[in-house]
Amino acid sequence: MVTRLSQLFLRTLREDPADADVASHRLLVRAGYIRRAAPGIYSWLPLGLKVLGRVEAIVREEMNAIGAQEVHFPALLPREPYEVTNRWTEYGENLFRLQDRREADYLLAPTHEEMFTLLVKDMYTSYKDLPVYLYQIQTKYRDEARPRAGLLRGREFIMKDSYSFDADDDGLQRAYDAHRGAYLRIFDRLGLEVVAVNAVSGAMGGSRSEEFLHPTDVGEDTFVRSAGGYAANVEAVTTVVPPALDHAGAPAAHVEATPDTPTIDTLVADANARFPREDRPWAAADTLKNVVLAVDLPTGQRRIVVIGLPGDRAVDLKRVEATIGAHLGVAGEVAVEAATEADLAAHPGLVKGYIGPGIALDEPVLGTESATGLLYLLDPRVVDGTRWITGANQPGRHVFDLTAGRDFAADGGIEASEVRAGDEAPDGSGPLELARGIEMGHIFQLGRKYAEALDLQVLDANGKRVTVTMGSYGIGVSRAVAALAEGNHDERGLIWPRNVAPFDVHLMATGKGEKIFAAAEQLAADLQAAGLDVLYDDRPRTSPGVKFGDAELIGVPTTVVVGRGLADGVVEVRDRRTGDSVDVPVADAVGHLRGVVRGS
Amino acid sequence: MVTRLSQLFLRTLREDPADADVASHRLLVRAGYIRRAAPGIYSWLPLGLKVLGRVEAIVREEMNAIGAQEVHFPALLPREPYEVTNRWTEYGENLFRLQDRREADYLLAPTHEEMFTLLVKDMYTSYKDLPVYLYQIQTKYRDEARPRAGLLRGREFIMKDSYSFDADDDGLQRAYDAHRGAYLRIFDRLGLEVVAVNAVSGAMGGSRSEEFLHPTDVGEDTFVRSAGGYAANVEAVTTVVPPALDHAGAPAAHVEATPDTPTIDTLVADANARFPREDRPWAAADTLKNVVLAVDLPTGQRRIVVIGLPGDRAVDLKRVEATIGAHLGVAGEVAVEAATEADLAAHPGLVKGYIGPGIALDEPVLGTESATGLLYLLDPRVVDGTRWITGANQPGRHVFDLTAGRDFAADGGIEASEVRAGDEAPDGSGPLELARGIEMGHIFQLGRKYAEALDLQVLDANGKRVTVTMGSYGIGVSRAVAALAEGNHDERGLIWPRNVAPFDVHLMATGKGEKIFAAAEQLAADLQAAGLDVLYDDRPRTSPGVKFGDAELIGVPTTVVVGRGLADGVVEVRDRRTGDSVDVPVADAVGHLRGVVRGS
Repeated sequence: MVTRLSQLFLRTLREDPADADVASHRLLVRAGYIRRAAPGIYSWLPLGLKVLGRVEAIVREEMNAIGAQEVHFPALLPREPYEVTNRWTEYGENLFRLQDRREADYLLAPTHEEMFTLLVKDMYTSYKDLPVYLYQIQTKYRDEARPRAGLLRGREFIMKDSYSFDADDDGLQRAYDAHRGAYLRIFDRLGLEVVAVNAVSGAMGGSRSEEFLHPTDVGEDTFVRSAGGYAANVEAVTTVVPPALDHAGAPAAHVEATPDTPTIDTLVADANARFPREDRPWAAADTLKNVVLAVDLPTGQRRIVVIGLPGDRAVDLKRVEATIGAHLGVAGEVAVEAATEADLAAHPGLVKGYIGPGIALDEPVLGTESATGLLYLLDPRVVDGTRWITGANQPGRHVFDLTAGRDFAADGGIEASEVRAGDEAPDGSGPLELARGIEMGHIFQLGRKYAEALDLQVLDANGKRVTVTMGSYGIGVSRAVAALAEGNHDERGLIWPRNVAPFDVHLMATGKGEKIFAAAEQLAADLQAAGLDVLYDDRPRTSPGVKFGDAELIGVPTTVVVGRGLADGVVEVRDRRTGDSVDVPVADAVGHLRGVVRGS
Repeated sequence: MVTRLSQLFLRTLREDPADADVASHRLLVRAGYIRRAAPGIYSWLPLGLKVLGRVEAIVREEMNAIGAQEVHFPALLPREPYEVTNRWTEYGENLFRLQDRREADYLLAPTHEEMFTLLVKDMYTSYKDLPVYLYQIQTKYRDEARPRAGLLRGREFIMKDSYSFDADDDGLQRAYDAHRGAYLRIFDRLGLEVVAVNAVSGAMGGSRSEEFLHPTDVGEDTFVRSAGGYAANVEAVTTVVPPALDHAGAPAAHVEATPDTPTIDTLVADANARFPREDRPWAAADTLKNVVLAVDLPTGQRRIVVIGLPGDRAVDLKRVEATIGAHLGVAGEVAVEAATEADLAAHPGLVKGYIGPGIALDEPVLGTESATGLLYLLDPRVVDGTRWITGANQPGRHVFDLTAGRDFAADGGIEASEVRAGDEAPDGSGPLELARGIEMGHIFQLGRKYAEALDLQVLDANGKRVTVTMGSYGIGVSRAVAALAEGNHDERGLIWPRNVAPFDVHLMATGKGEKIFAAAEQLAADLQAAGLDVLYDDRPRTSPGVKFGDAELIGVPTTVVVGRGLADGVVEVRDRRTGDSVDVPVADAVGHLRGVVRGS
């Protein structure tokens, strides 16, 4: 194919769009790949659609290669199946909801577990029909609170989602492994570096899940990795728990007035001065900070919880959001924030700055929910036998040597503290480092949750009905285009990896001679005949500077310039990424470029 | 490719689905091509998606061949552009509307004129940039009052829509002609018979528009055609108007009591008995029937209009709906129905059964709207000088010899009467016959309506700003799959045209010998090596009867049976459409099938 730039529906922009906050967004708009239609909603121009199509083709090939079969579901779906699984409610404000002319409820699907489950239920009845892997490449909707970064977090986006159906756990594991392999091959072919991170906290139990993160500073996800190979998203990191201590010898707890200790540091200094430990000085990590949080549930309810953690750590709200639902007995997405004054006013026992569990008052303020009416959860570091300085639930007073397991209890543990660089990896593989990434894919062993809710059973070899076990696997296809742009650009424009570039070669004629244009025309035709996909800048009156600028902005990996060198019988072949250029005799140009493009 | 039926995600059904009212719907569901997700909303299974993909590929090739460039717009769009053109309102209940979490209004786009117009405005500024033809193959939404017939009239469906942008009318004509040609090639390649019909009434003026209808009894659109080549949809047919008569010699109108004339026939008989015409007997076509209609506007308003037409004709509400908006000064879709008792009660001058225009009362009941407050429109046959029997606006009384142009006037003419088989074609090409069809495509010279509303201008050769002129062109892609099924089936199943069939060859092994399956395996591999796309029924324990039944239901055009004949060194090649079969030596099978498939 030869596409003439003079005919291509394209207008490159010199200025960055005002609303673009990351490089991929800026460059994809400036180079004429996409345009914004509404917040988080984009149109694909011819160049963008070509790259998108190449990404889709790679995804499709690798999914087909593991025996997955392509189907296509509607985006507009009735409420009922999502009601059965409770996701109609759980999705909260992230779900686009609407009514039809008969006032029946519909949604724009954010993901299709329910529909795939019902389809397999409709079609299959026996374990002999399984396994089956189904996928689609389809437009999804999510009413993000903060759409940002162009295609990186949109409200209408393209996903490949697949689902596996097996009669037993071994089958699910095989399906999961097959998808994991396919995903790694897809990202490799796309030229997209990814790190596979554990995405479900081991402490929470549950099924296996991994995210594929593309490391980049503009990523929204923080993840950790160790030199020894551990990788996890921050929500999934489990704390290395110190051993429990015997509290037989611990001194008795005592309440003291602690004037002039507005900060943890001043409190620790005061403690070391007035009530020194016998074994070592008090440290910030010996203070027990009790943080009051408000949790907004998908149902619209707001719940107050208190989390106790060492005073040298901050609460990571995302980590709390990942697991607090299980403690509250709700599924779906929750939003967690610091409790407001109004929230606190409803719990007058909580004395701001002096909140603590245990013995300090006749009526315990914090402890187990059954005793106090307030859910109280502890950082895993608060093991039995540890001694703490914490609030006494009275203004100006703290309690000292309050000992876990002896003087106070809680409703359970929670991974709520921030993970810090230097923390130990849970598998002992060394200290963690923190990095940011974009979630490119997610694979998840769903197990029987959806099959149970929607009653998907098959007959096993003994004629007994068994519930099917499922996996769910997603790749952000439109997001991949943005991630590729983010990871492959310089200050002058995009630099596409060859496998997804909109064209193989960007050919341009620079100069005014008729001979130059005739030679460029001929070369375009010859390259086409050799099976290359050519973008030919045939604009007769555009300056070389503008042509070079557009070529660099558009980012085809190889540029061929037919210009001054023609008098000497050569064309210039330039590598967009390295900037290197070589002069190639006209007669050799096709062979040379085939070699460059085909990688030989 | 070889697809093994034992692995294919497929389950054929013996029973028709309960909700399927047409053959294409029944068979596409039974043969495992589609499944219903909600009223008018369907999921595509692997077989269906393959056929859909082949249809899309043909559409894409022909659009690219006329220089159209593919883009892709969102389905979820903000209200604002549709507000500017007033279509937010005009679409009425057919539009799916929703709000996002910030309560901003959105819609699911039924068509994208606004967005394409704004995109070109964003990108282009000069006549030199034009023409540009843009298209997309995209999911559209329309909240149909009566979704029916499976994919034939859905609420979520796939359309190819394209738009042309030109600086002048000649350019628009070229764009229109190019699309017209591409559409005819597309339908030809799909194997889909279509009739191009005029879709805009010449009487209404306005731009050129044609629909491509696939003739079938299950079609919702009625169209007419003459032996001489005229074709139009019923809304577009113009009446052959008789010449005006001189009313100088017409007798004076006279009001008479007309007891016992409950029907037009009895009224005519009474007239011939008591007040005979001097030239010929009165006929039903000489009575002027005045029909009161209620028009529901997109704004929610309800307007009353009266239409006068010869008593031997009925009003065709669809024809009225097509043009009444222009008379009322509103754009968009209107719904017309007979006025209710409540509507009539608001106009006490209208005496049911005795409504008439003209002189019969001091205060005219019907005439021009300025005189009566009621819009009154006449069938084109009511030309000046014609003499009528009509109501006298008094119970039991009619007026005779009421003469058009002398005794009464109206606000204008309207094509409101039913078109009947035998009516003359407006171009004189002979009597019309009526037929039914499915609208497969529609091409339309929009002109400057959208460009004006959204201010799309370019600089012309003289540096003057000119408004761009546009065309809009649509093909129902998912509907084409259903129309192809509708036009290509028998009582046993589907019979796909070769260009859109899900596979080239349906190969089956029948019998139990290992040799048979080994030979079938080998043939499958050889056919694949020869570039054919093979569905191989490799099920080891399925009876030949079930295999044949599935093959006939699925409808691949050519079946190859490896069975009993193998002992004699032959396989059976069967044509699904004709039922003809030939025995072919195994050694020749690949060559023979290549010939059949490639049409040589």
